[in-house]
Amino acid sequence: MITKQLPFSEDQIRQISEDFPTPFHIYNENGIKGSIRSLTESFRWSEGFREYFAVKAAPNPYLLKIVAGQGGGADCSSLPELLLAQKSGISGEKVIFSSNDTPADEFIKARELGAIINLDDISHIPFLEKHAGIPELICLRYNPGPLRTGNAIIGNPSEAKYGFTREQIHKGYRLLREKGARRFGLHTMVASNELNPQYFVDTAVMLFELAAEIHRAEGIRFEFVNLGGGIGIPYRPGQEPVNLKTVSDGIKSAYEKIIAGTPLHPLKLQMECGRVITGPHGFLVSRVLHLKKTYKNYAGLDACMANLMRPALYGAYHHITIVGKENEPAEYKYDVTGSLCENNDKFAIDRMLPHIEEGDLVVIHDAGAHGHAMGFNYNGKLRSAELLLREDGSVIQIRRAETIDDYFSTLDMAGLQNFSA
Amino acid sequence: MITKQLPFSEDQIRQISEDFPTPFHIYNENGIKGSIRSLTESFRWSEGFREYFAVKAAPNPYLLKIVAGQGGGADCSSLPELLLAQKSGISGEKVIFSSNDTPADEFIKARELGAIINLDDISHIPFLEKHAGIPELICLRYNPGPLRTGNAIIGNPSEAKYGFTREQIHKGYRLLREKGARRFGLHTMVASNELNPQYFVDTAVMLFELAAEIHRAEGIRFEFVNLGGGIGIPYRPGQEPVNLKTVSDGIKSAYEKIIAGTPLHPLKLQMECGRVITGPHGFLVSRVLHLKKTYKNYAGLDACMANLMRPALYGAYHHITIVGKENEPAEYKYDVTGSLCENNDKFAIDRMLPHIEEGDLVVIHDAGAHGHAMGFNYNGKLRSAELLLREDGSVIQIRRAETIDDYFSTLDMAGLQNFSA
Repeated sequence: MITKQLPFSEDQIRQISEDFPTPFHIYNENGIKGSIRSLTESFRWSEGFREYFAVKAAPNPYLLKIVAGQGGGADCSSLPELLLAQKSGISGEKVIFSSNDTPADEFIKARELGAIINLDDISHIPFLEKHAGIPELICLRYNPGPLRTGNAIIGNPSEAKYGFTREQIHKGYRLLREKGARRFGLHTMVASNELNPQYFVDTAVMLFELAAEIHRAEGIRFEFVNLGGGIGIPYRPGQEPVNLKTVSDGIKSAYEKIIAGTPLHPLKLQMECGRVITGPHGFLVSRVLHLKKTYKNYAGLDACMANLMRPALYGAYHHITIVGKENEPAEYKYDVTGSLCENNDKFAIDRMLPHIEEGDLVVIHDAGAHGHAMGFNYNGKLRSAELLLREDGSVIQIRRAETIDDYFSTLDMAGLQNFSA
Repeated sequence: MITKQLPFSEDQIRQISEDFPTPFHIYNENGIKGSIRSLTESFRWSEGFREYFAVKAAPNPYLLKIVAGQGGGADCSSLPELLLAQKSGISGEKVIFSSNDTPADEFIKARELGAIINLDDISHIPFLEKHAGIPELICLRYNPGPLRTGNAIIGNPSEAKYGFTREQIHKGYRLLREKGARRFGLHTMVASNELNPQYFVDTAVMLFELAAEIHRAEGIRFEFVNLGGGIGIPYRPGQEPVNLKTVSDGIKSAYEKIIAGTPLHPLKLQMECGRVITGPHGFLVSRVLHLKKTYKNYAGLDACMANLMRPALYGAYHHITIVGKENEPAEYKYDVTGSLCENNDKFAIDRMLPHIEEGDLVVIHDAGAHGHAMGFNYNGKLRSAELLLREDGSVIQIRRAETIDDYFSTLDMAGLQNFSA
């Protein structure tokens, strides 16, 4: 059987699943720290490099504290995410607020936190000015449109709702300078879950050239460029992780060619990755509830797509380990299902696995990003708990499971009693 | 502009959106009552016909009370849905519990409510017996497998995780009789959002023939067959609703041919539709927050895919009315977007609409089923309120909007303060 490594022994995960009822997500603190350190260290040559963790990937303040402890910031795109960053002790320019179609109160909160505001559209300049004022430091999001083909996942930039066109971005910086902005950043985001290192180098080249062009044309000097996120992870056992040294080396030589020795130097680099930081270090742990044999073999778990939606939503592959059977041959074909009343509630289709028995403990890998975060209550499903495996081997709960009371909390039950139809 | 009817006048919806902040879902009591009455009345010839409303479509107990007031029951598939039915005053055989991969506590609750238990798998017979006991009345879910092609949405029965094979269902009834069951039902569900009336007739023929076959072979007499749900609705303005009379007439002649005049008569009919009951009578009301013009024209709403996920998830069409502009020509092409940081957060792509201005009130149609129900908190989005337009024209709130406190409710903030990483 092809295996992927687990951060806990068989005995350890059995014990954890006795201490905490399945299903749950468990994150590996050590792994998350390692990811953020690897990314930061690979850009050591670039002074002031900062990774802003994409909060939406794993919006848990305990995880944000881990990120912050390694020098990382927070990439937020809504008011609750800004509040999460604040409660995790991340504020000021360690927060970048990259939103689109933004309500006024979110800009106001971002200003209050002293966050870097990354504007999505030229019309947001007067909107921001009116509702929150123009800050000294401002960033604009660039959408290259037909000049760039998007990667497979994020789609074509011309079809993307985000960012300024090239013409607009020139005009935007001029306008912002007139309105009092003094420090400038440039941002783009053109990839998601991309495994080709060259893609990130190309993005850096694109932004360096654009920064130089805007500098020449408008006299704007940039403090930073933000390359966005989108570094993919090897969901499948055979895949290789993105070689961060290759990415960094490629960006470094582009920097030396386009920026170094020009008035644009020094130009800080930023990224806003989510998946690569927490994705491989989060595991959905579940138990086999039922085995079913009809036209296919089904292993039914006590988890469902409310715990991890990617397989149902995108047909995404997530590796599955049957605990204690890592060395058994994967000779049996299963659909691994959840209990939600939707036929796409399957964690795997036609997956070769060892022989499964009721009660087997199942670990679903790479559930640390866009996993718990995307959970819903459809079909009355309650979202499960999140645990943290600490560096000393201890385990703490960092989010409790939802209860029936949570499910009913937005309903006025007293009103219901008086309601007649 | 092609229009779809609204149950409120322009003045009325403007007033409601001043009384309640957008976005919200608003349901039309009168319409829901009409839908359930139409369905029931079209099966008047079939004594004891009952529609069990599929709770997952719109799990709001106020709506369930409306359904119950018209004689409808509840089709539940999880513990929270069973509790919703109970709190709405629906219990006993007015509840059918159709689940899959079922945990023991859900069977126990279903037994406690006296619900009809509809088993999904032959292995659930000993499981139910062990945990909750075998009830007098029991139903089994049939999966025709290769004998039937699924409709476009639900996929091929052979690939569906649900139900018993033909061989298993014979064995299942024998086993249940041995274990003390005395009253029997037969269930299937092979369609979703189907607009072809013949499909439902074919399903009835399939179940009638199977009931006859099992009666002949096993001596089991059925009290009812449950045809499942799956009646579609005309999301697009040009589409016709399913003619319920055609469905009912077709099923009636199949009944007369296969059941009437045999020992199988009387055989009650049940359905478990969700979409056709509440779908057309729920509206997502939102306001235009931003207009954006880059490579395309965007109208950004204050709602997002957290309020209605079908367009982003399935590319589903939902008709859009710009309030007060119903009679203006649809001459402008827009992507109508939400603010979630996902490029698929679009309610419509390349939709021809009247000229849109900031602040315009927007009604998204057919959001009464699988709308609010599928909401999530991804990207820190909060789920919105649900309102009910009563028959007397008054409006009441039947679910409050989520708050930031709800968003943080499963986090231990005191623990967070002591947490260091």
